[in-house]
Amino acid sequence: MTGHMTSAEFRKIGHELVDWVADYWDTIEERPVLSAIEPGGVSGLLPKSPPEKGDGLGSLVADLDGIILPGLTHWQHPSFFGYFPANTSGPSVLGDLVSAGLGVQGMLWTTSPACTELETVTIEWLAQLLDLPERFRANSTGGGVIEDSASSSTLIATLAALNRVSGGAWCRDGLGGPGGLDYVVYASTQAHSSVEKAARIAGLGSRGLRSIPVGAVDLAMDAERLSARIAEDKAAGRVPALVVATLGTTSTTAFDPLPEIGRICEENGIWLHVDAAYAGAAAICPEFRWMHEGIEYADSYCFNPHKLLLTGFDCSAFWVADRSSLIQALSVLPEYLRNAASESGSIIDYRDWQIPLGRRFRALKLWFVLRWYGAEGLRKHIRTTIGLAEQFENLVLADTRFECVTTRTLGLVCFRLRADNELNEELLHRVNSDGMAFLTHTVVAERLTLRLAIGSPFTESSHVSAVWCRLQKFATEVLSS
Amino acid sequence: MTGHMTSAEFRKIGHELVDWVADYWDTIEERPVLSAIEPGGVSGLLPKSPPEKGDGLGSLVADLDGIILPGLTHWQHPSFFGYFPANTSGPSVLGDLVSAGLGVQGMLWTTSPACTELETVTIEWLAQLLDLPERFRANSTGGGVIEDSASSSTLIATLAALNRVSGGAWCRDGLGGPGGLDYVVYASTQAHSSVEKAARIAGLGSRGLRSIPVGAVDLAMDAERLSARIAEDKAAGRVPALVVATLGTTSTTAFDPLPEIGRICEENGIWLHVDAAYAGAAAICPEFRWMHEGIEYADSYCFNPHKLLLTGFDCSAFWVADRSSLIQALSVLPEYLRNAASESGSIIDYRDWQIPLGRRFRALKLWFVLRWYGAEGLRKHIRTTIGLAEQFENLVLADTRFECVTTRTLGLVCFRLRADNELNEELLHRVNSDGMAFLTHTVVAERLTLRLAIGSPFTESSHVSAVWCRLQKFATEVLSS
Repeated sequence: MTGHMTSAEFRKIGHELVDWVADYWDTIEERPVLSAIEPGGVSGLLPKSPPEKGDGLGSLVADLDGIILPGLTHWQHPSFFGYFPANTSGPSVLGDLVSAGLGVQGMLWTTSPACTELETVTIEWLAQLLDLPERFRANSTGGGVIEDSASSSTLIATLAALNRVSGGAWCRDGLGGPGGLDYVVYASTQAHSSVEKAARIAGLGSRGLRSIPVGAVDLAMDAERLSARIAEDKAAGRVPALVVATLGTTSTTAFDPLPEIGRICEENGIWLHVDAAYAGAAAICPEFRWMHEGIEYADSYCFNPHKLLLTGFDCSAFWVADRSSLIQALSVLPEYLRNAASESGSIIDYRDWQIPLGRRFRALKLWFVLRWYGAEGLRKHIRTTIGLAEQFENLVLADTRFECVTTRTLGLVCFRLRADNELNEELLHRVNSDGMAFLTHTVVAERLTLRLAIGSPFTESSHVSAVWCRLQKFATEVLSS
Repeated sequence: MTGHMTSAEFRKIGHELVDWVADYWDTIEERPVLSAIEPGGVSGLLPKSPPEKGDGLGSLVADLDGIILPGLTHWQHPSFFGYFPANTSGPSVLGDLVSAGLGVQGMLWTTSPACTELETVTIEWLAQLLDLPERFRANSTGGGVIEDSASSSTLIATLAALNRVSGGAWCRDGLGGPGGLDYVVYASTQAHSSVEKAARIAGLGSRGLRSIPVGAVDLAMDAERLSARIAEDKAAGRVPALVVATLGTTSTTAFDPLPEIGRICEENGIWLHVDAAYAGAAAICPEFRWMHEGIEYADSYCFNPHKLLLTGFDCSAFWVADRSSLIQALSVLPEYLRNAASESGSIIDYRDWQIPLGRRFRALKLWFVLRWYGAEGLRKHIRTTIGLAEQFENLVLADTRFECVTTRTLGLVCFRLRADNELNEELLHRVNSDGMAFLTHTVVAERLTLRLAIGSPFTESSHVSAVWCRLQKFATEVLSS
């Protein structure tokens, strides 16, 4: 099989693998959620060197079953409750299949116009579903784009902010050297690690990041402390460049007070980036749109359809109110990419909206998902998911041995045994160790806290009941040990 | 269809779409390579708002055919000769299908061990095929990873270099402020635009980038000029951090003199990143491995299997000789990602090798490709591709109206009419305008130059002859006009 795969071979193996994926989903519940393998458990089963001759994928399905599947933590499993969900769906997978088959590059409008235009349209559809402000929308000064992740969205917001606050000098002069200014980025102590990573990548170092304290109960950024730190930095000759406000923190889904933060940013001319990576999807339901109060102050906004909106990773939706700040920050134009369409100014070249140059046709999977489910179907998934979390929360609240550590708002429940950290750690270890379910942890005010996040389309009420029964059983064991 | 897609529906539509992709490839030659649509030609055909109710993908295939395909530039078309190839293959598409279906996250080893371990193994297989130095290889101080693009690879090399040259102070202090040093990055005037973009993202600005002149004939970096600029910068108190040497420039596939550059980097303690994004794939054939002379000096190396190695975008292979510089530059560890496996130090967490946190299971497509073709099949594809370029070059050389602008080494031919730039531009316009083929251009020493790059697995000798016949015909027209 050293030659190219024929059309007939592609059809035959393609059908087999579509069925293999369907079989995987049909039987996923029979597998342990968390892989039990030890380091080297997969690599040790693979040849040390590549095959000299192709083998026609003959034993491929056997190897997928025998080598790969035992080494996976199954993120689509109905009892996967760890981290945040990264759910996918049939329509999304099929959109990705078509994207891979077309194999086009969307770096410039001209390199495949449909790749750019379908992205502009589907991202505008999302903006409508979320009821985002006009200035983020198509035909405004702003616009939207699909990034690979919220980390990248935070990074490009940081770069656009540095460009704007420096009046464009940042592109030319950078940050260093004798005349270098001290730019500062602000986020709460609960912000995602990608804020620190973005500040570091952008050359600000940890010295350029201010971690603003949060309220003891709501874990939301303390706006007064933010205001005070900004004043202090300005007095010391530093330049506040960016505030990242989080809607739905990773640790506990806390919500920063957007209206207060927004007013502070406006008064001080600071770029406000809103990181709603996880929570934003819920805003497609009017009853959860309270989270967007104050969003009119935002210069950029991000949420991940690949978390709760049934569109497989990678699909992070990013909007900017003034696209020129972003494009100016990221545009570099060599001769070999010059073309008439770009020079006309009438089109979008998304390469200037992201870190890499090349880009896949990611809008296809989003289009497939939006068409399959419709707004109605997506809202139903959000409500079902959050309803299941509410069910779990009620179970926790009814057992006096447990407590909820924070007030649940969406699909994440943060809870713990009313006991010391060691016992909670032991409880987590026991519930995860036989593969029936998978939860992760965080630490809130020095208390080890269990996180149960719901999101898989396969999760039903019975899975929630089942994990709770097991938690109760292990709690009894742990408390009596 | 507001509910989830059933297993039966997924199988049925999945089979249809596998066949749709196969049909697309079977008939791709009948389509114009370059889309002829005007701006808005796709978006204007789509609804302004998302559907309220799902439509079950009923009219999806019709819309793919009627709306999407006319808006594409067909990168897999046998007469796509533009930019560099971004080829894919049946095995790659099927690997991506399985990856999308599994929907796992490989950010940490523990979040899906097989995702990490298969990547380590397949990237080691590639290192063996390229005969890369030991220090890049598994079980050394270095290692390899799949990035989305060479742009991202250049960026992370820049960050690792800044971290190393500053002795780690860069993580803490960044670049700016009163004590900020002037770090400098060097690359030739012919280096990819991503070097300038990376320098800007990293906060160096254009001020921190030195574009080193190239030889007039070979377009390769002038090592003496590099050495002189480094000395000048050091004398001025600036800190040389990184040299990017290119093997196979985007404009003309020029090769920078790696041994000389390497010695200069070694003497000055400068990180050497080798960008072989396009050309590196050819090094799987011993007869093209001359390009790696001097590679023992490299601190990092990148090539893109998604260009010539039949693995669909995105798959950029990146190796580093001292992984600790890279990991220290990119690692940020919040509580919710802490886990026993990471703390044991015995595994790899690839999130610390890239800009985003999340990551897809990209190693699957590479595994499928390596298994299907074997080393033999991949070498055959490289040799066929380069042989076709040689065929085209010979045709150009036999027509005295034309000239080759540079000496061809791999699959790219740079040529022009022996006439002024306007006539060459007109020739390019005519050959591209009816959709029978697609070429791009560059400018070499102020001369507009046509670029014909070969790489599609569908390209055969007849396509090369056909585009040449058309170029000859249009040349006659243009020269007589």
